[in-house]
Amino acid sequence: MLPEPMQQALDHRKARAEGFAELRYLRVTDDFHATPRGTVLAGERLVYGYPHIGRILELETGLALQFEQPFWVEEKVDGYNVRVARLGERAVALTRGGFVCPFTTDRLADLADLRILDDHPDLVLCAEVAGPDQPYVAGHPPHVTEGVQLFAFDLMEVGRPGFLPAADRERLLSAYGLTRPQRFGRFAPADWRAIQALVQRLDRERREGVVMKEDSAADRRAKYVTASSCIDDIAAMVDNLLQLPPEYFTGRILRLALFLAEQGETGQPSARADLGRAFLDGLLGAIERFRHDHRVYRTHRCLFHDPANAHALMDHLRRAEGPVQVIQRGLTPQEDGWVLEFEKVYVGMTGLLGHLLRGGMVFD
Amino acid sequence: MLPEPMQQALDHRKARAEGFAELRYLRVTDDFHATPRGTVLAGERLVYGYPHIGRILELETGLALQFEQPFWVEEKVDGYNVRVARLGERAVALTRGGFVCPFTTDRLADLADLRILDDHPDLVLCAEVAGPDQPYVAGHPPHVTEGVQLFAFDLMEVGRPGFLPAADRERLLSAYGLTRPQRFGRFAPADWRAIQALVQRLDRERREGVVMKEDSAADRRAKYVTASSCIDDIAAMVDNLLQLPPEYFTGRILRLALFLAEQGETGQPSARADLGRAFLDGLLGAIERFRHDHRVYRTHRCLFHDPANAHALMDHLRRAEGPVQVIQRGLTPQEDGWVLEFEKVYVGMTGLLGHLLRGGMVFD
Repeated sequence: MLPEPMQQALDHRKARAEGFAELRYLRVTDDFHATPRGTVLAGERLVYGYPHIGRILELETGLALQFEQPFWVEEKVDGYNVRVARLGERAVALTRGGFVCPFTTDRLADLADLRILDDHPDLVLCAEVAGPDQPYVAGHPPHVTEGVQLFAFDLMEVGRPGFLPAADRERLLSAYGLTRPQRFGRFAPADWRAIQALVQRLDRERREGVVMKEDSAADRRAKYVTASSCIDDIAAMVDNLLQLPPEYFTGRILRLALFLAEQGETGQPSARADLGRAFLDGLLGAIERFRHDHRVYRTHRCLFHDPANAHALMDHLRRAEGPVQVIQRGLTPQEDGWVLEFEKVYVGMTGLLGHLLRGGMVFD
Repeated sequence: MLPEPMQQALDHRKARAEGFAELRYLRVTDDFHATPRGTVLAGERLVYGYPHIGRILELETGLALQFEQPFWVEEKVDGYNVRVARLGERAVALTRGGFVCPFTTDRLADLADLRILDDHPDLVLCAEVAGPDQPYVAGHPPHVTEGVQLFAFDLMEVGRPGFLPAADRERLLSAYGLTRPQRFGRFAPADWRAIQALVQRLDRERREGVVMKEDSAADRRAKYVTASSCIDDIAAMVDNLLQLPPEYFTGRILRLALFLAEQGETGQPSARADLGRAFLDGLLGAIERFRHDHRVYRTHRCLFHDPANAHALMDHLRRAEGPVQVIQRGLTPQEDGWVLEFEKVYVGMTGLLGHLLRGGMVFD
């Protein structure tokens, strides 16, 4: 018999069967009642999806309204979210959507010391994987200049939704010496000016932002991002302007405006030109690339130990990336493993630019 | 018995009954087979919707592909489209959507010399109404600095879809001395450099763009807009970022990029900063207005001869503007008529800013 949340999701076609190597598992494809998207069942082990964390767009009022107790402030790292858990015979890394990530799973031993899972096999390690050489996101934090790194920031437990209490999280992550996002200290809501100053510094350093976690049993949370991360996200994804939800762009423009409204122009003296540049240099680059290569694309490069995982990643991306075409360009043995190179071709932009640059019309 | 296109639209719930003063009519609400949205039936008189005109985004290839013969180039005026026809006892102005516009209809005698309809009662005069003092669009051409003006550019006939042939259009519009959009001459597709130079001048003058109409029985058409019109459209509507289709914004950014790609940077040396400014100054203004007035809104001002038409306009906008709240602020007699002042309140932006500036969170 399946655990009830998974049975219900299956009954409502909100769960699907998946596989990775010998592992068979079920994955919740959409939030369903209290069960988040990305919840996974393998054998009898249920790993809940990573909970949604709300975003505030004004610090002064947001901190006052969302927090009742002091909170820890840590860096929000620009990468992709994984949950690492022992499923089947080994530890695997689950994406936000609940797929086993063949890349992260292949590289787990390089990315983190997982003795914590040997000693506590029911823990789920929640982390951001960030860096230039990974298959998912286009940006990366300025302090990870090559490869990928893993930053652990939360613990969950197999079979339970939500996070381990703050005190346990602090004790365990420290005891096992896991690399964590930079932590900036413990603040009260009234300290919003100090957090403003901190965020302005992160903004100048082009870092993504902060996550605030209340130091209490309630574990209230909120995130807040910098102006530069809004601009960099737009620049990174404007090649795919036609197939990303347009709210991707409008949401970031609104965040940027609220950042400027609160922090003042000194925070981002060139925000207007930077925003325009993110859109236009990105699109002019896409047009240039189309003229040269007849397609709009971005190249990714990932190191694997086991080439079978590279093939599994290609299969995974072809399924999960929707209307983006994924083309393998090379899988080359090197001293430290196999380097996979592939392209994501933005077929919407490629098709429209082809039509328009040939002289085609649009009716809008 | 109804004419077949209207009967079919009605059968498929694509037509609705409407009224304006004593006039009763049916309006096609969505394109349905070959019958365009905005097609209207009053009594036995069927006025077809204004046909869709395609847009090219590159001049050199677009002109070569879309035109086989020389074409006339005329200004694309930044206003709203009307079809003026005799329905019932008098001439009325129909909006693109097929509503009788109470404002334009009230002011028809000021806007155009309609003897053309006295002599040819089955003609439909197609025109753009533009200027700062009208109820629909936020922008206006630089050469219409007060009130509204009507620019006639096409003729249709009651009971027939599509336009009157070019020669008849030219003869009739000239004969009755109707004000027309500025006409820039007759060009061949190979003259694209001359049209480029023309469009660059229009761009510097912050005019919207051009419509090209083939001087042939095929009457092929295409439109092309300037970079500055993309930027000005964004600036004009960013207050309503949340409730306009996001494609409103992403489409204009793409047009702007293709304009720059073809025309080069000399055409728009400050396009990047201008685009960023359109978004950010607009949103910072909306935030400021929200802090001051607790709502995000835009004020319109329209002159009427008959105050009953002002009330009819309010009723019409309340129905047609969807999620925008329309609030009448005044209806004041003046020497030349009645001045209606009203606000369009962008309830989506108002609600979200209220939530966020109070410190609320969003989950995205």
